[in-house]
Amino acid sequence: MQPRLKTGDAPEVRAGRLEDYMRRTIPLVTQMQVRVAAYDAAGLTLSAPLAPNINHERTAFGGSLASLATLACWGWLWLLLEDEPGMHMVVNEAHMRYLRPVTGLLTARCAAPAAAGQGKFLEVLARRGKARLELTAEIAEHGALCAEYTGSFVAYREGSNPP
Amino acid sequence: MQPRLKTGDAPEVRAGRLEDYMRRTIPLVTQMQVRVAAYDAAGLTLSAPLAPNINHERTAFGGSLASLATLACWGWLWLLLEDEPGMHMVVNEAHMRYLRPVTGLLTARCAAPAAAGQGKFLEVLARRGKARLELTAEIAEHGALCAEYTGSFVAYREGSNPP
Repeated sequence: MQPRLKTGDAPEVRAGRLEDYMRRTIPLVTQMQVRVAAYDAAGLTLSAPLAPNINHERTAFGGSLASLATLACWGWLWLLLEDEPGMHMVVNEAHMRYLRPVTGLLTARCAAPAAAGQGKFLEVLARRGKARLELTAEIAEHGALCAEYTGSFVAYREGSNPP
Repeated sequence: MQPRLKTGDAPEVRAGRLEDYMRRTIPLVTQMQVRVAAYDAAGLTLSAPLAPNINHERTAFGGSLASLATLACWGWLWLLLEDEPGMHMVVNEAHMRYLRPVTGLLTARCAAPAAAGQGKFLEVLARRGKARLELTAEIAEHGALCAEYTGSFVAYREGSNPP
């Protein structure tokens, strides 16, 4: 009998597990009121309302936008590797361009990298127990790009050297 | 009679005003429990306890570290320009290197840029009503550097074109 893979579950079930996991382990996720807005083969979108994430200019706080983008990329990776036992995922470099203020709902969408890039990453991870992947997230509002995030993430198996 | 400049107040009085202003206008500052730990001519240090800023690895959440570093630099600029009426300050680009996990109190120190750089920034701001300044913050724990942040900040006077 085949083992039941969590990754075989429906995307909305898996998205719900990610949301639960983030809330349980990262208190700021609850404070920011982060939700999974969409998850499919093309990527992961997280959202958060403006009120808990507002700043002195009455627009979205830059730290909230950076946090949401980080979580979107890290969350996408978490979902990719959900069936891998003892796997850790951390960010080790990030770049953020703030292009225009966000005045309402915050959303950050991590686009799934091309299949070839995913395959290479998984192959290195399987072979070395550690691999790096660059992920990007876009923050947009009413069709206009508000911020661009690029993060370098490292996944490593328990027992291998952390990055 | 000379006007009483707020910048003439003792550093701890000014640091208290920054803390009040941040808490009043940015709810995440309260949720993260951000405090001004030190302020003098050499720079501004903010701190936050681990508990509200913890992540799934039981170390500091990368988004909290990015937020704290952003606030340290933005706060330093706010204090520099406290006597300038109608001044806005925003971040428009940021880069963060995560070098090692933070396992206890989070601190971010923005070092005051060299006097020449400050002078040039203030001169352009006075002349054009808008100027850009690169600021850096270091996150360290027990003497070891844990993260390095570089942010590009823009200050602009009300009525001038925002960045």
